[in-house]
This record gives sequence, C-alpha cells and structure tokens, in this order.
Amino acid sequence: MRHLASIVAATADLATPFLVVDEQVMLHNISRLQAKCDAAGIALRPHIKTHKSSEIARRQLDAGAGGVTCATLSEAIALGEAGIGTDVYVSTPIFLNPPKLRLLEQAVELHEKLTLTVDSSDIARSVSAQAPPEVGAMVEVDSGLRRTGVAPERASHLADELGERFRGFATHGGHGYRLGAAEEAGRDERGALAASEAALGRPAGVLSAGSTPTAPHAMGPPVTELRPGTYVYGDHQQVVLGACRPEELAAAVVSTVIHASDDRIVIDAGAKALSKDRAEWLDSYGRIVDHDTAVIDRLNDNHGMVESSGLLAVGDRVAVVPNHICPVVNLFDEFALMGDRLHTVGVDLRGRLR
Amino acid sequence: MRHLASIVAATADLATPFLVVDEQVMLHNISRLQAKCDAAGIALRPHIKTHKSSEIARRQLDAGAGGVTCATLSEAIALGEAGIGTDVYVSTPIFLNPPKLRLLEQAVELHEKLTLTVDSSDIARSVSAQAPPEVGAMVEVDSGLRRTGVAPERASHLADELGERFRGFATHGGHGYRLGAAEEAGRDERGALAASEAALGRPAGVLSAGSTPTAPHAMGPPVTELRPGTYVYGDHQQVVLGACRPEELAAAVVSTVIHASDDRIVIDAGAKALSKDRAEWLDSYGRIVDHDTAVIDRLNDNHGMVESSGLLAVGDRVAVVPNHICPVVNLFDEFALMGDRLHTVGVDLRGRLR
Repeated sequence: MRHLASIVAATADLATPFLVVDEQVMLHNISRLQAKCDAAGIALRPHIKTHKSSEIARRQLDAGAGGVTCATLSEAIALGEAGIGTDVYVSTPIFLNPPKLRLLEQAVELHEKLTLTVDSSDIARSVSAQAPPEVGAMVEVDSGLRRTGVAPERASHLADELGERFRGFATHGGHGYRLGAAEEAGRDERGALAASEAALGRPAGVLSAGSTPTAPHAMGPPVTELRPGTYVYGDHQQVVLGACRPEELAAAVVSTVIHASDDRIVIDAGAKALSKDRAEWLDSYGRIVDHDTAVIDRLNDNHGMVESSGLLAVGDRVAVVPNHICPVVNLFDEFALMGDRLHTVGVDLRGRLR
Repeated sequence: MRHLASIVAATADLATPFLVVDEQVMLHNISRLQAKCDAAGIALRPHIKTHKSSEIARRQLDAGAGGVTCATLSEAIALGEAGIGTDVYVSTPIFLNPPKLRLLEQAVELHEKLTLTVDSSDIARSVSAQAPPEVGAMVEVDSGLRRTGVAPERASHLADELGERFRGFATHGGHGYRLGAAEEAGRDERGALAASEAALGRPAGVLSAGSTPTAPHAMGPPVTELRPGTYVYGDHQQVVLGACRPEELAAAVVSTVIHASDDRIVIDAGAKALSKDRAEWLDSYGRIVDHDTAVIDRLNDNHGMVESSGLLAVGDRVAVVPNHICPVVNLFDEFALMGDRLHTVGVDLRGRLR
C-alpha cells in the first residue's frame, strides 16, 4: 500500500480528514473487471452506490459498462441530472406510492432505459398499475442472504404476474461477505438464477448476479450480467475476504493524529469519517497504512481511538483504509482524486436515499 | 411516542426514507435545558454537531445560549457563512498546520469570539505560534473517557504554557454513555475540573463540562458552562440511559416496508439512513415506533432487516427512533420540520469534517 502512503505526503496542503482516491489504481480496477466480464461474455452493470459520483460512473461507462445499477430512484435522478442518461437498473424493491411514482417519472425522463425490482405481489401490482409502460422489472430471487428476494418458484410466479414488463431474474449473494463464503455464495447465485429460469419454463432474459466477493465465482452460466460495486475502490474487508489485493486499494481517509499519550493515540477521523461499519470478523474500524497492527478500537463522531503508544506523534498524518468503503464515501461531499495532478471530484449522488 | 406516529401519517406525501423533526418537542427540549441552566447560573453552550443546522443553532441562541460548541473549524465556518456569527468553542484539539490555520483564519473572520482546545504541548505550541492573537484556548482534561484530554496536573501546566490565551478547563464525560454510569461520570467531570483549577492555584475562568447524560449531574460547582448536544432531539440510547423521556424524542427516520415474508420484514432505511451506531447494551439498530419489540438486527446500505413476521405489510410506513441521533442527522442533507406546517430545513453543516 505504498501508493496510499505516498498520497499522504502529496496531500499535505489539505486539511484532514478527507477522502482520497488513487486514479491509476481505480482505473486499473475498472478495466480489469471489465476485461474479465468481456472475456466471459457477461455484461457488467456496476453498482454506483459505492462511489456515488457521476464522474466515476462515466469512467465505468467509458470502459465498457453497458449501464449502471442504482440503489434508489434519487441516485438515478442525480446521475441523470449530472448529464448521464443511460440504462439504469434500480436494485431495491420499491413500493410505488404517489411520492415514489413522482421520482420514478423523473428518473424515466432522464434515462434511456429504466428497470425496477419486484419481489412481492404487492410491489408487482403497484408497478403494473402505475409505472410508465416502458419501465421494465426484474424479479429478485433470494440466493441465501435472506434480505429481499423470494424463492425460485415464487420468483417465476412473479415473472408471470409482471407479463410484458418482465426482464429477467436478479440476485445478490451478500452472504458471501463472510470469511471463506464467497465461492459458495457465488455458486448460490448461479443456482438460484438457474432454478428460477427452470421454474419459469422458458428463457428468462437477463440473469443478473452481483457482489464484489462473489463476482469471480458467479462469472459463468447461466449468469448474463454482474452488478458489483465495491471493486472500483476496494476496501479492507475485501482484502480480508480475498476479493481485492492490497495494491488494488484505491481509496483511503487521510487523518491527523491529534493526541498521543502513554496508552493511546487519537486521530481526527471518527465515526463521521470512517462509519461504524465493522464486520464481526474484523477487530478494527479500518486499517492504518504502514501500521498494520494498530487497532482503531473506539470511534466517536470526530475521534478515532487506537490503544497503543509510540507509533505516531501529534501532527502525523496517516491514511486509513476503511473496512467498508460504501458508507464511508457517503459521508463526504467530495474527494481528492490523485492522478497526474490532484483535483477535487464531487460525491454528487451522496445521500439520495429516496 | 404518539407524536412521532402522527408525523408518519402527516408526511405521506414524502418519499422515504427521510428525517423528520417535531418542532414543538424540539423547542421544549431547548427551552427546558436552558431554563435549568439559567436557574443554576450555568452557561449553556450547545454542541451543534448533533443537528448540524444553522436554523436550529439560531433557535438555541434565541432561547438564551450565549454561544455554541463546534466539533470542527469547518462547522464553525459553515455556521458563520449561514449568517450566525457568535461565540464559538471548537471542542476537538487541532494541530495547526498550514491548511488548518487557513480554516482557523476564516472562522475567526466570521465569529465574534473563537476558542480552541489544547491537550498537549505540541498543540499548545502550534496555537501559540500561529493563531491570531484574539483566539483563546481551553485546556482539555480527561475525566474518565480516555479519549483526548490530560490529567488535572498536566492540564494546569498546559494552562501556564498558553499564557494570555488560556480561558479555562474543559472536559467531556463521555464515559457516562454506559448503563447507570451518568451520575458518576457527571461527578467525574466536576472533580476533574476542580482538580485542574486546584493544581493551577488560581481562578481558571471557564470550567466547562458536557454531555447530555451527565448534564443534570454536572450542573453545579465548580462547573460554569455545559456543552450537551443530543438533548435537542434526544434518541433511543438517551431514553435507555434515562436522559430523555419518550415524549421528548423530537427526531425520527420515516421508512417504508419493502418486503414482508414468513420470517422477516425489510424496511428501506439501512446503514445509510440509520448508521451502524449501536452501543453494546442495545440489541437493535433503532426502535420502531409502535413496534417496541421489533429488533432491527441487520443493516445493509439501503435495507434494514427485522427478524419477525406479521407485524407490518409491504407499503406500511414506520418511524424509527435512531439509537444515536448525531451520526444519523449527518447522513441527511435536509429534514422535514413538522410544526404548524411542514417545511424543509437544511442540514447545512453536514459533513464539514475538517
């Protein structure tokens, strides 16, 4: 992670804490997965909730992505308002009440194509009755995460309920976010999609899987599309899961040591900079570059506490690789993009929860 | 919490998830603590990191607060840019390097008075050498939280190092955020401030304590000032700690049920709406109003999972009282303020981490 350490030195003129992205590493991550998908004949539809930035979405589309995945309608609207009208899949089921319908109509106006997610008859009916006719829908099938999505047989029934709007089946193997679980979760994704299509009894169209840890394992029949998000920046938990090499880490939070005493060090990146996201198999709220054994074991809003001494002095600056980059990016309005030169890029889709 | 349930009904025209504040309850919270401080002859300097809103800061100042507490210089700058120039205390120690000095100079221009925090000789020297002469400094003493701050004797030495800039001692009894610990932590705050003044051997000036749970217990000699933040809105952990009554909860996240199956319910408020803040003595990522036994036991970015069935149906809307309101407010760009009418107020100090 020498590249992240060198960014700390190159950004001494910025007040901490801030989010920084290494442009070269990010572009490598984008092109590497795009090339793998191209070679496998699988469409890549990156989930933009990771970066929440129209500029980074543009890089992904320029590299060959045929469309994007959004978590919410307001992310899709913000992307369209930033000048990117594309093929958008909204991956969270949305019950179309009047305010959501207004958002849907805005999003439809801004994009070439818009596809929703359905995982219940309630939502299928709300979509069938109200969505503009050109809006399609994927049926979400649960491959083991136990979040949204239904069992394969129920998924095929929902496909029938949707009629002309039906575009295919989607799943998210988020249960691959456990140590050693990614390969099996990737197989689960393929299995759930195959079973859904078999229950349907005819070609389903798109069969979409997606998560960064499962991507290598889901990259084969019957999958036609992948929707990973985190691969663009990587993060500490992806490294631990084996889904990202340390040299592929593109993003970090730069922070300053504000206190150093006999038994602790305190940095100015707290929960409002690093989030409190920590999988149960991680011991620290992020990894300090060049201080791999330092454990950030407490976070308050504006303070990160390390139970250690002598490692660092007041005024030292460090790069912290977040455990989970998605909620961290969402805390910042902008980030420092370190390429040939340093410039500021907006997280212009930040928030946008609706 | 009937008031929060009625807000859900009154906001049916807004797409979820969103943050809502009950104006009457908030104003009650502000005036109640102000009256208590006035009666005790103690200055109230609310911490604005809770609401991050210049409009709410104005309400606190209008109610009698003599100044505010900020966590960062950029919060102070945003407040000043919103037209509120006041007496600002920045409660986190800041090592003044060139970019921080530029922020300090901006903040000084915008406010009537600006006071920094010092808890080491490194920071004392950086302040003494560079801060504009009118900038004062409090010395932070650790009353038991083990975060920033020093022991009372060391605090008195730092006061001497600061010379003319010294304004008093400050402490934060954040170790009162444990079940049954608030009263003792409030005593610790008073004790640490008294010991610091005793070690100094002369009147210290301001003796400032602060946190919502400890406020009732720190409200007496030698304390001259309190800096609570959360009291303005309250949250679930304050209720559990006994520092807020359910009818004093002013803020909630309104969310919609997007999935309901045999063993779970999923709402559209996830980690990007509720944060993953959950004290070890809490079992849920927030409390669902009118469904007190429902446990939100998993959060993904845009999904909140409740292991239960039959409680709620797809399309139902619920109010969720966050565990810890501060990081939750910081996720939203605006909130719905429910008073005589419903209007939108900006979280215009959101982010502002530097």
